[in-house]
Amino acid sequence: MSGEVIWSEGHSGGSVSALDRGLHYGEGLFETIACLERRPRFLALHLERLALGCARLGLPAPAAGRLRERIEQAAAALPRAIIKVLLTRGPGESRGYRWGREAGTCVIMRFPWSDADAAQGRAGARVRIASTRLGENPALAGMKHCNRLEQVLAANEPGSAEADEALMLSTSGRLICGTMTNVFLIDGEANAVRVRTPEIRTCGVAGVMRRVVMREAARAGLAVEACAMRLEDLSSAREVFLTNARVGLWPVRSLPGRELAPGPLTARLAALMRPLLEAPADG
Amino acid sequence: MSGEVIWSEGHSGGSVSALDRGLHYGEGLFETIACLERRPRFLALHLERLALGCARLGLPAPAAGRLRERIEQAAAALPRAIIKVLLTRGPGESRGYRWGREAGTCVIMRFPWSDADAAQGRAGARVRIASTRLGENPALAGMKHCNRLEQVLAANEPGSAEADEALMLSTSGRLICGTMTNVFLIDGEANAVRVRTPEIRTCGVAGVMRRVVMREAARAGLAVEACAMRLEDLSSAREVFLTNARVGLWPVRSLPGRELAPGPLTARLAALMRPLLEAPADG
Repeated sequence: MSGEVIWSEGHSGGSVSALDRGLHYGEGLFETIACLERRPRFLALHLERLALGCARLGLPAPAAGRLRERIEQAAAALPRAIIKVLLTRGPGESRGYRWGREAGTCVIMRFPWSDADAAQGRAGARVRIASTRLGENPALAGMKHCNRLEQVLAANEPGSAEADEALMLSTSGRLICGTMTNVFLIDGEANAVRVRTPEIRTCGVAGVMRRVVMREAARAGLAVEACAMRLEDLSSAREVFLTNARVGLWPVRSLPGRELAPGPLTARLAALMRPLLEAPADG
Repeated sequence: MSGEVIWSEGHSGGSVSALDRGLHYGEGLFETIACLERRPRFLALHLERLALGCARLGLPAPAAGRLRERIEQAAAALPRAIIKVLLTRGPGESRGYRWGREAGTCVIMRFPWSDADAAQGRAGARVRIASTRLGENPALAGMKHCNRLEQVLAANEPGSAEADEALMLSTSGRLICGTMTNVFLIDGEANAVRVRTPEIRTCGVAGVMRRVVMREAARAGLAVEACAMRLEDLSSAREVFLTNARVGLWPVRSLPGRELAPGPLTARLAALMRPLLEAPADG
C-alpha cells in the first residue's frame, strides 16, 4: 500500500509491515508443525496443504525447497518444538481488496513444546460444545487460512476454562470439528464397527493428522467414512477421539453430561499411530 | 506469544509484531474514514461502530478521546486523505486461540485521496455479480472485522477489471452487499416508490454511509426498508445505488446485461446527502 504509517502501538520482537494484507484481511495461511528429535513431523504433508491453499487463494507460494530448508533449520535448534509457518500476500501495493503483484510474507516462528502434552493426550480430552458456529462457504473450506474469528470466539466462550476443547457445529447444524482439532466417532455393532469423521466440504479445516489417521486406518483395513454428521451422532458414539498436529490422537474422556471410558478401537488406532508420532515421519 | 521469530520476510515502513493476533487470525477491526478540509467525515459514527465491534469481539478498546485526537491530528496534515484505523487484539500472550490480557494494537494509516473519486461517483458504477459468496454467521455480521478473504476473492475474480464493484450473494442466495459498498434498490409505482437495502443480519458489513443515507432519507420522509433481498429484486429495480465512506452515494449505471439511466430518486437522495458529504460532518 502506498500510504504512510502515522501511528502504531504494540511492537515487540520480529515484525511485519503494518500494511501487510495478512494483518488487514487475514489473507494468509498457516501450518502448525510438531518437531521432535530436532526434525519436523509430517513436513511433506504440511507443505502439500500449504501449496494447495496458496493455489486456492492465489497467494504467491514460496519456493518449496527453500521453505523446507528453513523449517528444518529451525527445528534442528531444539530437541522438541512447535513451529508455526505463516504465509500472507504481503504488504499491499494499493489500498483495498484488489491484489497486485505482492511478493508475499513468510514468517517462521518457533515455540517451546513441553512433554506435558503427551500426558494430556493420555489423560483424554474434556470436550464441550461451542455456542459459536461456523459459517459455511465451500470456497474457504478445508484450508488453514487466517480468517479465524469463529475459532477465537468459540475458544473463549464462558466455560472454556473447564474444557480442553470445544466442538463446533456449522450454522446449518452439522457437526464439523473442534476449534483446533478434527473429530472421529466410533459406533455400530461389534461385527460392524464404523469409524466416521465429519466431511470438510462447507467449512472446517482438513487437518494433517486427520489425513494421517484416515490413511493409517485404511492401511489396517479400517476404512474411515467422511460424511455429513450431526450432534446426535456424537451422543450415540461409543468412542470419540480428536486429532491435531501437536497431540496426535487424543481420546475424548467427557462430553457434556457424559463420561466416556477408554475404548478398544481408539486404543487400536492409537497403537497404529504411535510409531509415526514418536519418530518424526516426513509424510 | 512466547515464541521467538526465526525468519521473516516482507518488511517495509511501519510494522507490527509478527506475533500479532490480527496477523494470525484476522482478529481485528478497521474503519476507513474519508477526510476533507483536513477533518475526518462522520468520525463519531466510525468510532461508535468500532466500539461496538470491540464489545462484540471482546477486543481491548482504545481510549476513545485519545483515538479521536490521533485521527484528527492525522487528518489535519493534508487537505484530503483517507485514514484507515486498524485495531487488533495485539501480540498474543500464548500460542493458540485462547486470549489473555493482550493490550491491543492500533495502527492509523493515511492514504492520498484524489479528486478523481468525485468524478467516478458522478459517472456511476459498472457492477457485476461476484461468484464468490458470503458465508452466513450472525456472530460476525455487520462488523468491519479483518476476516475478509471472501471480499478479497470476490474482488479478484475474472472480469473484475471491467467493473467498478461486485455485488455479493450469501451462500443461501440472498443479495447482501458489494465487496466494499452497501447497495440500495428503488422500485415500486410512482405513487408508492420503495427504497430498500438488504438487511445485514447473517453476513455483510453495516456501512457508516448506509446508516447516514437511511437516516437522511427518513428525515426527508422517505423510509428505507432493510429486508431480505434476492438477485431478482436487483433485476426488477428501477434505480440502484451503492454507498461507502469514500464515494458517498454512487449511482449504478450498469448491471450484467442492463444499462441504468440516472434516476430521479437517486438524484433526490444524492442532493440530500451533498451538504453532508462536501463538508466534514462529524456524526
